[in-house]
Amino acid sequence: MVAQLIDGKAIAARLRQDLAVEVAAMTAQGHRPGLAVVLVGEDPASQVYVRNKARQTVEVGMESFEYRLPASTGQDELLALVDRLNADPAVDGILVQLPLPPQIDATTVLRAILPEKDVDGFHPTNVGLVATGAGGIVPCTPLGSMMLIETVRRDLAGLNAVVIGRSNIVGKPMVQLLLAAGCTVTVAHSKTVDLPGLCRRADILVAAVGRPEMVRGDWVKPGAIVIDVGINRVTGADGKSRLVGDVAFAEAQAVAGAITPVPGGVGPMTIACLLHNTVKAAAVRRSLVPA
Amino acid sequence: MVAQLIDGKAIAARLRQDLAVEVAAMTAQGHRPGLAVVLVGEDPASQVYVRNKARQTVEVGMESFEYRLPASTGQDELLALVDRLNADPAVDGILVQLPLPPQIDATTVLRAILPEKDVDGFHPTNVGLVATGAGGIVPCTPLGSMMLIETVRRDLAGLNAVVIGRSNIVGKPMVQLLLAAGCTVTVAHSKTVDLPGLCRRADILVAAVGRPEMVRGDWVKPGAIVIDVGINRVTGADGKSRLVGDVAFAEAQAVAGAITPVPGGVGPMTIACLLHNTVKAAAVRRSLVPA
Repeated sequence: MVAQLIDGKAIAARLRQDLAVEVAAMTAQGHRPGLAVVLVGEDPASQVYVRNKARQTVEVGMESFEYRLPASTGQDELLALVDRLNADPAVDGILVQLPLPPQIDATTVLRAILPEKDVDGFHPTNVGLVATGAGGIVPCTPLGSMMLIETVRRDLAGLNAVVIGRSNIVGKPMVQLLLAAGCTVTVAHSKTVDLPGLCRRADILVAAVGRPEMVRGDWVKPGAIVIDVGINRVTGADGKSRLVGDVAFAEAQAVAGAITPVPGGVGPMTIACLLHNTVKAAAVRRSLVPA
Repeated sequence: MVAQLIDGKAIAARLRQDLAVEVAAMTAQGHRPGLAVVLVGEDPASQVYVRNKARQTVEVGMESFEYRLPASTGQDELLALVDRLNADPAVDGILVQLPLPPQIDATTVLRAILPEKDVDGFHPTNVGLVATGAGGIVPCTPLGSMMLIETVRRDLAGLNAVVIGRSNIVGKPMVQLLLAAGCTVTVAHSKTVDLPGLCRRADILVAAVGRPEMVRGDWVKPGAIVIDVGINRVTGADGKSRLVGDVAFAEAQAVAGAITPVPGGVGPMTIACLLHNTVKAAAVRRSLVPA
């Protein structure tokens, strides 16, 4: 049996369509949502991300505010900009693209963003609200991963979920979401003993470690839902570079019930969820819906 | 083999002795730490807790501020008191005893406490800081449980830990602490399938569900460290009431490597950790140590 392919690209496109309808309705009421993206320096990968975010923001009908600052920008200068964006009523979401240059402390900057405009969901207040099930803004990648899982199966209660990776950006919030959905959740990481055996018990397997094709086919429980968060660039025997996930896709596809490809799985969901978070933040902040 | 008994009463007494030394040193420098405890209404159990907290606060040399308000107290009145305590430089820790009467929203009140004085560790900011490993104040019961585990074994990296219960006060913060210590952590709860089988794989088993003697001896892996957070009052066949934990103690003791009794295990650690959190909060807020 070959696993069902979870088409993140198509699902993200559908999410953006739904968001465009919501944005149009909000705009008609005089509440067009706006996302501000701040890029400091010239990191080429960051430039691509910021361009894609801005383009998709505009495509769903939102306002996009782009701030490009030189690599020499001081921390106080960046904090002053964040303060201005915090106070700007047209700005519903603020995203400061990482990494930041060495003279700027990322933690200080991220904590300066108002929690209600922190559409990345990295502010301690949002982390705490999400962890306690009291609302808050959920980080984009785990939120998108959860949406993908829910396209395959709605009721997750009682399923065994294994999350490989305990990062603050993916692994840990993913645990909270799976737990809230009623899964029995195990967090595995570099210190875990017998990771293959642990994975083989997972009805839902989320790999977020950044190690190319680490999860092999025989680590996968037959019929499992496999979510591959990894995006790794590797060079093949032919000397060409290509993107692979943390899961050995072909092997796993032969065993799993459903699986995300890389690219075209979790990746496209991340920006779509950023837009989703911005629309939601706008609705909450403008009192169109309860928090 | 009979398991080693983890004597929470003795360990808590030792912790209080150490705290008394710290408090004396801080007091000599003009920084005597102070804990404010607020009790609204006449709940008998709460009165006992508050009395014990105040007594132990004074015993370690700290200042104790007790506020007893009538059950009819309005939310605004309580919030005004919290504001005063937030602003009071002599107050390092603020604890509002739960439950609160129905006219008061506990969430609103707990979020009004300044995070740096939130010695219960319930404020979303502290939850977020603890979850991301960025500092913050750890809730007392999981902190005390962790200290008990560490009296048995220092290096927990790679051990399988199972936490039964996903409450915001115990289960979820316990997951973060065990994860930070390098354990592979599984969170189980009422929806978990084959809980006994899962528990049998646990090198560290933490039970925090509030179901008397639910965890049986044959659920325990030989040699495991068993931490029993439950405190349940049951009536025996003789008609007398007694306290039991979530673990069937005698059965589990015959299998485990180390185990906490109930009472005298995790219970005494909770108040001792409240004092610990207050001393730590005082040192941070008064800039005696870095945050």
